[in-house]
Order: sequence, then C-alpha cells, then structure tokens
Amino acid sequence: MAYPVSPLATPFPALPQIAGVNPHVVRAGYKDWGRCDLTYVTLEEGTSVAGVFTKNLCCSSEVELGRENVKQGLARALVVNAGNSNAFTGYRGREAVKQIMDQVAGHLGCPKEQVFVSSTGVIGVPLPKDKAREGVAKALTAEPCSWEEAANTIATTDTFAKGATATAMVSDTKVTISAIIKGSGMIAPDMATMLGYLFTDAAVDPAFLQECLSAANLATFSCITVDSDTSTSDTVLAFATGKAGNAPLTSFESPGADAFYAAIHDVCRQLAHLVVRDGEGAQKFIAVTVSGAVSDESARKVGLAIANSPLVKTAIAGEDANWGRVVMAVGKAGEPADRDKLSIGFGGTWAALEGLPLADYDEAPVAEHLKGHDVTIEVDLGLGDGLATVWTCDLTHGYISINADYRS
Amino acid sequence: MAYPVSPLATPFPALPQIAGVNPHVVRAGYKDWGRCDLTYVTLEEGTSVAGVFTKNLCCSSEVELGRENVKQGLARALVVNAGNSNAFTGYRGREAVKQIMDQVAGHLGCPKEQVFVSSTGVIGVPLPKDKAREGVAKALTAEPCSWEEAANTIATTDTFAKGATATAMVSDTKVTISAIIKGSGMIAPDMATMLGYLFTDAAVDPAFLQECLSAANLATFSCITVDSDTSTSDTVLAFATGKAGNAPLTSFESPGADAFYAAIHDVCRQLAHLVVRDGEGAQKFIAVTVSGAVSDESARKVGLAIANSPLVKTAIAGEDANWGRVVMAVGKAGEPADRDKLSIGFGGTWAALEGLPLADYDEAPVAEHLKGHDVTIEVDLGLGDGLATVWTCDLTHGYISINADYRS
Repeated sequence: MAYPVSPLATPFPALPQIAGVNPHVVRAGYKDWGRCDLTYVTLEEGTSVAGVFTKNLCCSSEVELGRENVKQGLARALVVNAGNSNAFTGYRGREAVKQIMDQVAGHLGCPKEQVFVSSTGVIGVPLPKDKAREGVAKALTAEPCSWEEAANTIATTDTFAKGATATAMVSDTKVTISAIIKGSGMIAPDMATMLGYLFTDAAVDPAFLQECLSAANLATFSCITVDSDTSTSDTVLAFATGKAGNAPLTSFESPGADAFYAAIHDVCRQLAHLVVRDGEGAQKFIAVTVSGAVSDESARKVGLAIANSPLVKTAIAGEDANWGRVVMAVGKAGEPADRDKLSIGFGGTWAALEGLPLADYDEAPVAEHLKGHDVTIEVDLGLGDGLATVWTCDLTHGYISINADYRS
Repeated sequence: MAYPVSPLATPFPALPQIAGVNPHVVRAGYKDWGRCDLTYVTLEEGTSVAGVFTKNLCCSSEVELGRENVKQGLARALVVNAGNSNAFTGYRGREAVKQIMDQVAGHLGCPKEQVFVSSTGVIGVPLPKDKAREGVAKALTAEPCSWEEAANTIATTDTFAKGATATAMVSDTKVTISAIIKGSGMIAPDMATMLGYLFTDAAVDPAFLQECLSAANLATFSCITVDSDTSTSDTVLAFATGKAGNAPLTSFESPGADAFYAAIHDVCRQLAHLVVRDGEGAQKFIAVTVSGAVSDESARKVGLAIANSPLVKTAIAGEDANWGRVVMAVGKAGEPADRDKLSIGFGGTWAALEGLPLADYDEAPVAEHLKGHDVTIEVDLGLGDGLATVWTCDLTHGYISINADYRS
C-alpha cells in the first residue's frame, strides 16, 4: 500500500467470525513487498459455494477453473495470491493454479474441484510455482488470522482494507455474513468486479446461493466503475457453511429467504461502494441516479455512460457543475433519450429541466454540494419508469500518477 | 489558446485558395477572448455539399438543421461560431441558428437551406442573438482572410491551427482540396468528429460527394479517439464549387473518381491525425493496428477498446510497455478474441506471441520506442483477415488540468 490512504476511506468494520470458516495469511514472496501475500481460507465440509466472474474474454486460468468448478456447488478452501494475477500466462499459468488445487486438496482430503484459487496483480507473468508451493505449505499449518489481516493480504494497489457484514433472521435463526474485497483500479461494470469473498454460516442450497449472488451482483458490482477497464481476474465468491443451523434455504419460497437475500445484497452494496471509495486517485464518491428511462437496464446504461465519461469525472474533480457534459454523456449512451425532456441536477438541485437550462438556476447550493466528498448527480429522462443508481469516483491527477508508473 | 502548444503540433501547411470559396473572420464577442470568433465562408452558386454529423442523441440545433439541409445538396455559405456550442439550449438555441441562416440568405439572395451553421464551445448557454446578428453583419462586408486565420477562428481549446490539402487528377483536370478542422477534447469515435470543413474546386454531384465523405469518414474520423466522449456538435462538411472545370463526378464509375476519392480520404486522414495531435494533454501520438480479426469492423472495435482504455493510455504516458493492459482491453472489447492466439507488440517488436509472453523478449528496443513522440501498438488476434488502424493520444496530467477547470 504505497499510496496515501484515500480521503474517502472508512475504518475496517468489526467483522464477526463465521462458524466453519478460518482465514490464514502467509508470505509467499510473489513480490518484494515486506508483507503477507497469500491468503488461505478453510471451509468446513458441506459448505455451499456460488460465484460471479469477469466477462473479459482474456480471463485468467483462475477464472476459467473457478467458473467451471463452482458448478458442483461445494467448497473446502480458498487461496488468494496477491502481487501476480497470473493472467495471460498460457499453460504455465494454468499449471500453477492446478498445482495449488492439488496441494490443498491432498492436504484436506477433498476433491480438487472444491479448492478455489484467485490471483491479482500484474498481468503476463506466470505465477512462480516454487513460491506458490512453499507458500501453500506454510499456509496449511498456519494459525488462523483476523478478517482485517486477510483483507490486507488480498490487496494490491488498495489504500485501505475493505470488509462488510450483515445479519438476517431466517425463521428463528440468526445468520451472519462477513465479507472482504479488494479493488481500486481496472474497475468496470457489467461483471463481478475485482476479488470479493462473502462467508456466511447460513445453510443455503448452492443453486439458491448462486441465484442470490447473481441478483445482488446486477444491482451492486455491475453498477460501479472507476475507469471503465474490465479486469481479467474479477471474481466474487460466496460461501455458506450451514453452521447456523437454519432449515436450508433452497429458493425464494423458503421461509427467511427474502431476509437472507436482503443481507447478501446489503453486503454486496457495501463492498462495491468500498471499491469505489478506494478508486485510484479518488477524491469524490459520486452516485449517479437515472430515472425516467424506458427500463431499469436502460437507466443503468445511461448512468454508466455518465460515470465513465472522463469529462464528467474531471468536472466533478474540479468541483464544476458542468451539466453540459452530463447532457453529452446521456446523448452518447446509445439508449433512448430525448434532449427536450431531459432534466439534470446536482445534490438535489435541478440545473436544467425538460431540455432547458433553468432561468432562475441558483448555482450556490450546487457549488457548496460539489465541495464535499459525496456528490450526487440526478438525471431524469422523462420517458418511462426505468430507474438505476450507479457509483463512481472522480478522475484526478492521482489516477495518472498511480497508473503512469504502476508496473515499474 | 490558453494552453501550451501541443508537443505533437505540426506547422500550418500552405493551403491553396479554392476557386469559388472565400473565407472571412470577424469578432462577434461570444466570449471575452481578444480574438475573432465568427468565421464566414462564401461559396459560389452551384456548390455541392455533403456532411457527416455526430450520432450524439443530444445534438445541437446546428447539427439537426445541417443534417436536414444537406439533403438538398447545394450550399452558398458556412458560418462557424466559436466559444459557445449552443447545444442543449432548446427553442432559444434553434431561433439563434435560424436567425443566422435568414440573415445570410437574405444578403446572398439564396434559399436559407443553403446556409450551414456550426457552433462550438460550452454546452447549455443559448447563443446570444444580438451578438450573432452584429457579428454576421460585419462578416457580410469583411475582406477575405487566409485559411490559417479561419482555422484559428474556429478553434476553442485547440493549441494549434489545423489544415490539410491534397490534389487529384480528374481526367486531364487537376482538382484541389483545402480543408480546416478544430478539435482537441470530447473526441470520440464512430461519428464525424468535431468541426471540419473541406473545400474543393472539383465538380462533384452532391450524392457522390456524400458517398466519398461518408466512406472516408469511416476510415479516418471514426478511427480516432481522445477521451471516448462524443460531442453534441460534431460536424464535417465538404463543399465542391466545380470551378476546376472537370466533367462532373457522379459515381465511382466516372473517370478520375478513384483519384478524387483518394484525395478526399487523404485529407480526412490528415485532419483526423491533427485532432489527435492536439488531444488534450497529449504527449504521444499512438497508432494502434489490429490484424487477424474476424472482420475489419471487429478490428476497429478492438482497436478503439485499446485506444479508449485509461490504463493503456496512462501506461504509454509513463513509457511503460505494459502489454498486460492491452490484453485486458482486447478482452473487454466484446469482439471475438482467443487469449491463446493473441500477439502483442510495440514499435514493431513482439512482446507476446500466441498467448504467451516471449521467453526471450528484449524490452530494450521497446523502451527506446516508447520514449519517442510517435508510438505504435500492434495486435494480432490470429482469427481472420480483419484489419484496422485507429489513432489516439496518451492520458496525462495535462488532460486533468485542462478539464478540471475548463468552464470557469
């Protein structure tokens, strides 16, 4: 964590332990960082798993194997390597992942398909198999660590550790979710963004766990963007150990399923916001709400066109209520829009209504709003009932500084 | 022109006069710049016109009226306002454009549909009708000016004046094209980018002039991007006075049509490159060539995904051959790609071949290449014969500085 802590950082929350889940961290030495870089989480037998993965066609072997293995629904362990994404490394990268799966499965006496591996860091350098083997060997006998240590260990360019928690009542049983995530740059929408892991003691059928995670993903991870660039390694996995002892959730018809889904959604939203709050160079957290679209999906696309516009993001960085750039972004989104029905506001104050700049527009409250760390942009398309909120950060000199010399 | 001249700037070329075309510039005072801001070009009777316009759905009245009026095929005058784009200004903006068309048409005694108007500058402020009226009145009686004065007058955040020329032999007749363009930010692909004007003395049927301009646009203006943001005002118009005296060109079957098209294409390519060379904050001119795609259009889309990636553009700014980011951009493009067939190079040196980093990759010549002002990225997808080159610039601190306080 070589960069100054984001001004939008929030303290790491008190994450409850989850029965049946034990995190461990060790140093494999993938980079010459003086810190742990390998995270190993054990999961008790019978743990359900669900996952969402990057749609990037040049994805890593970790993603390919994870996407395949999640189908059998059970997990016994998670290994996360930091400092090397192992993406675009051909058969050598795939061999390294399989070696880790074999080594852990041999130790736990489980099918290797139940060992999930993620890697994050520079693209194009095969994960060194010797370092991975020694690191995993140490991890297999390490003492459990705190969630905060695990969150720090999966990080790369992140400037603060990120976690979230929620509880739900499933009939009479309280179930708990604890989750960690990493991510700061190469953050783009329409997929599961970056590496995120949710752990719950709830008893949940794998298929229903997947249904919950996919639905929550659509409204959370798929609604954030830092820089419009889609990573080759993005993965979010959810693990459910069943130790809470509730009657297993198998569908939205199960008693307590709605409460459980609400908690999953809440945790995903918290995690997604934390990634944006650590967006590379971010000084402002921006929520863009689009209403009046022809559909929710259309609203989301318009919101993302605004959130991805370098000109909108630099205007917010400059605390400039340049709503003309918002108009531009709406118009280039490729979604239905009618210039003469379009309204735009900042921080709850309309600057333009139905295609016309407001004659009595008072910029003072808007200017005051833009000085803060949390900025909202409101867009009403005036066409239908479609609604969505997307989240992004501003584009600053910090982003350029971080990315013009990341690899060296 | 408040910003330092782009390090990629080229001198304004010697642009030949075009028989039947007379440019004039005056100061209307749209902004408190101490320079001319209204350009007025007269065209002799019988001049053909063709145009391509922004696809932004929130386009200006200038674009709407231009797109409509170009259909009748004839032009007598062009008026360009700089400092105010008049976009997103509702009926008031439309009235200002119609006033200018009426005023010029009344003076020339021509149908108002033959007067073309463009405006460029801040969005959302109606063009002041009184200043426009006085400015046009002065322009109608002004002395003709040079092409360089006209190129300077249509500019806004541009740091240098931009022009291009070419000639072609149409049977025994030499025809000449002189052209000017402005543009630096809010430059995005898939449309006619920014304000560009081509003038030729060739005799060309309007429909064939449109065919030539549309085809050239696809391979030139539609292949550049500075910041992925599509303007609300982009317009490229071509005017042909017929004064060269060649037998009128009516289709690609006409003698000399191929040579004429080659000249139009050449001028469009020159103009498109000049816009990229003045990209906001640009320090490097980047050509991305994509081969081996399933089609030329697919190659163009992959090229634009690379050229629009903030992470690729900041890597080039940092002179970092971070081809992993190129892999990422290929994978997110949404076009057919196979990670294991993908090859990537810089300045003619392969860094990765068929999905694998080169074992004996020598970064020295690549590092040397990246130090220069002109950078090439080569991508081979290994799938088919599709080929395209797109052009962009790097993303630097200069872009942030310019855009975080443009309006104030």
